[in-house]
Amino acid sequence: MFSSNELQALLADYAAKHPFPERPSGLYEPCTYMLALGGKRLRPLLALMGCQLFTDEVQRALPVAWAVELFHNFTLIHDDIMDAAPLRRGQPTVHTRWNVNTAILSGDVMLIYAYEHLLKVSDAAIVVDLLRLFNRIAAEVCEGQQHDMDFEQRESVSLAEYLQMIEQKTAALLGGALAMGARCAGASADDCNHLEKFGRLAGVAFQIQDDWLDTYGDPARVGKQPGGDILQNKKTFLTIKALELAGENERAELLYWLNTPANTPGKVIAVRQLFDRYDIAAHATALKEQLQCAAFEQLDAVSAPRERQTLLRQMVTQLLHREY
Amino acid sequence: MFSSNELQALLADYAAKHPFPERPSGLYEPCTYMLALGGKRLRPLLALMGCQLFTDEVQRALPVAWAVELFHNFTLIHDDIMDAAPLRRGQPTVHTRWNVNTAILSGDVMLIYAYEHLLKVSDAAIVVDLLRLFNRIAAEVCEGQQHDMDFEQRESVSLAEYLQMIEQKTAALLGGALAMGARCAGASADDCNHLEKFGRLAGVAFQIQDDWLDTYGDPARVGKQPGGDILQNKKTFLTIKALELAGENERAELLYWLNTPANTPGKVIAVRQLFDRYDIAAHATALKEQLQCAAFEQLDAVSAPRERQTLLRQMVTQLLHREY
Repeated sequence: MFSSNELQALLADYAAKHPFPERPSGLYEPCTYMLALGGKRLRPLLALMGCQLFTDEVQRALPVAWAVELFHNFTLIHDDIMDAAPLRRGQPTVHTRWNVNTAILSGDVMLIYAYEHLLKVSDAAIVVDLLRLFNRIAAEVCEGQQHDMDFEQRESVSLAEYLQMIEQKTAALLGGALAMGARCAGASADDCNHLEKFGRLAGVAFQIQDDWLDTYGDPARVGKQPGGDILQNKKTFLTIKALELAGENERAELLYWLNTPANTPGKVIAVRQLFDRYDIAAHATALKEQLQCAAFEQLDAVSAPRERQTLLRQMVTQLLHREY
Repeated sequence: MFSSNELQALLADYAAKHPFPERPSGLYEPCTYMLALGGKRLRPLLALMGCQLFTDEVQRALPVAWAVELFHNFTLIHDDIMDAAPLRRGQPTVHTRWNVNTAILSGDVMLIYAYEHLLKVSDAAIVVDLLRLFNRIAAEVCEGQQHDMDFEQRESVSLAEYLQMIEQKTAALLGGALAMGARCAGASADDCNHLEKFGRLAGVAFQIQDDWLDTYGDPARVGKQPGGDILQNKKTFLTIKALELAGENERAELLYWLNTPANTPGKVIAVRQLFDRYDIAAHATALKEQLQCAAFEQLDAVSAPRERQTLLRQMVTQLLHREY
């Protein structure tokens, strides 16, 4: 069995052996640039770990792992245009460094290359299963992004709607990566389903954790001042839960703050005080733990030997308890 | 065997049975809108004709035909953003009717649905072949679009570069549609290759014909004043060939006109006179006929019975001699 670092090394080796073409450089340089920005490579790692639950031949899942990473980067390039984001991992986004047209077209070709890597899996029957799963999740990610954009325009969003949106936009791909990796090892449909559900539940829990960290994280460990989401009037678990629980007056007060510009003095402190009045941080932690339990119940139902599950369990547990 | 109209009816029936989901409407309505704008549905028709060369069971190729049409519409949605085109088939483009973000995301999901339809082909081994071919051509179309955008920024483009660009951007998909349709009928790799080459050569010939029509077409039949490409300073076969053949003075004169705004008085007449001095229209016709011959040589090499080829031969010949 391979450690996380060894799996990352296998992935880096696969990526290095499958660079984008050099020409036309206007099309492929932005793809190479985006991938060089790095990131945790969490999704491909999940694919490899999903495979390793059932076999030591994790190499079988490398094309799938890289396809998932390419798909993720395609969504980032296009989302950055839609969000008008100037920076990604501290570097200019593709549409900032080049332009919107380049970012559209390079994102498109990156999605096509994601499919190309899926086709490198050798067994034709498995390839078709993988593509079905990949397509279902790819469409779902687009739907999640659409809901996210729709929610920005709406006055109120229910907690159920928010949870569904983050499941589609971010958690589905985590579940899909695990299930696809397992399928490469020949795992049964049942095991793949449990792994997909595990990844989805854990993924939603990650996002609740992220929402919490943005307001309550230790600035010394997070590396930035808390309250970014509050300043940008982002709808998060915290704001949605607070609006759900607040009485009429506090609701009005919260809505007032959520419609002020980012530079309004005292905004973060005022909103945080409103959160605290309804113990929103505790609600976030409780929901996260509930999701975590439900996630691990799914993992318990997977037929892979317990000792093969250790690495995945450890990584997900660590991610759910990270404080930065 | 089915006539063109019968094939179109089969396709319309398939499309009606596979609508986009209703929700989220912000994501899927633009997809439905784009497809409702119509168009000749040439590419899916080629896929069905490619299949019909080898079998009467053209239904086998319907998912592929529709996948090709969805792919084509995905490229149109994104190309319209890149070209800042306000209208498509007389109606507002997706990014004009909605906005750029919507057009990006709806285009993305349409590409994903193209792959989804490819997976509806029942034989797993054929599906993988189809996907390989589809991916190769999809990446090529993106490369062609990149070259097209690059050429707009360049002072000079060689005829060879131009021909390669139009092959990638528009002709490759015609060849791919034919080959994929044939593959659905179980055609050999050799036959698929010949059909792909046939489609590519015919496709480049279509574009040369389009370039010629835009300047030399009969306004009464084309339905609009000629010279649109000249007004917009588009690099076409006509301008590139004229720049290649012109002496120093006329070259300078042509370059002068190709850098004037669209509303410059006398522009179309002046450029057309320069074209005529070097018999560019005749060069266009000669190249078109040369490509047509090469195309039909490829079709001659296809092992399908001659009587099954009639419909395809007739349609392509008509398209190459259309005057509007």
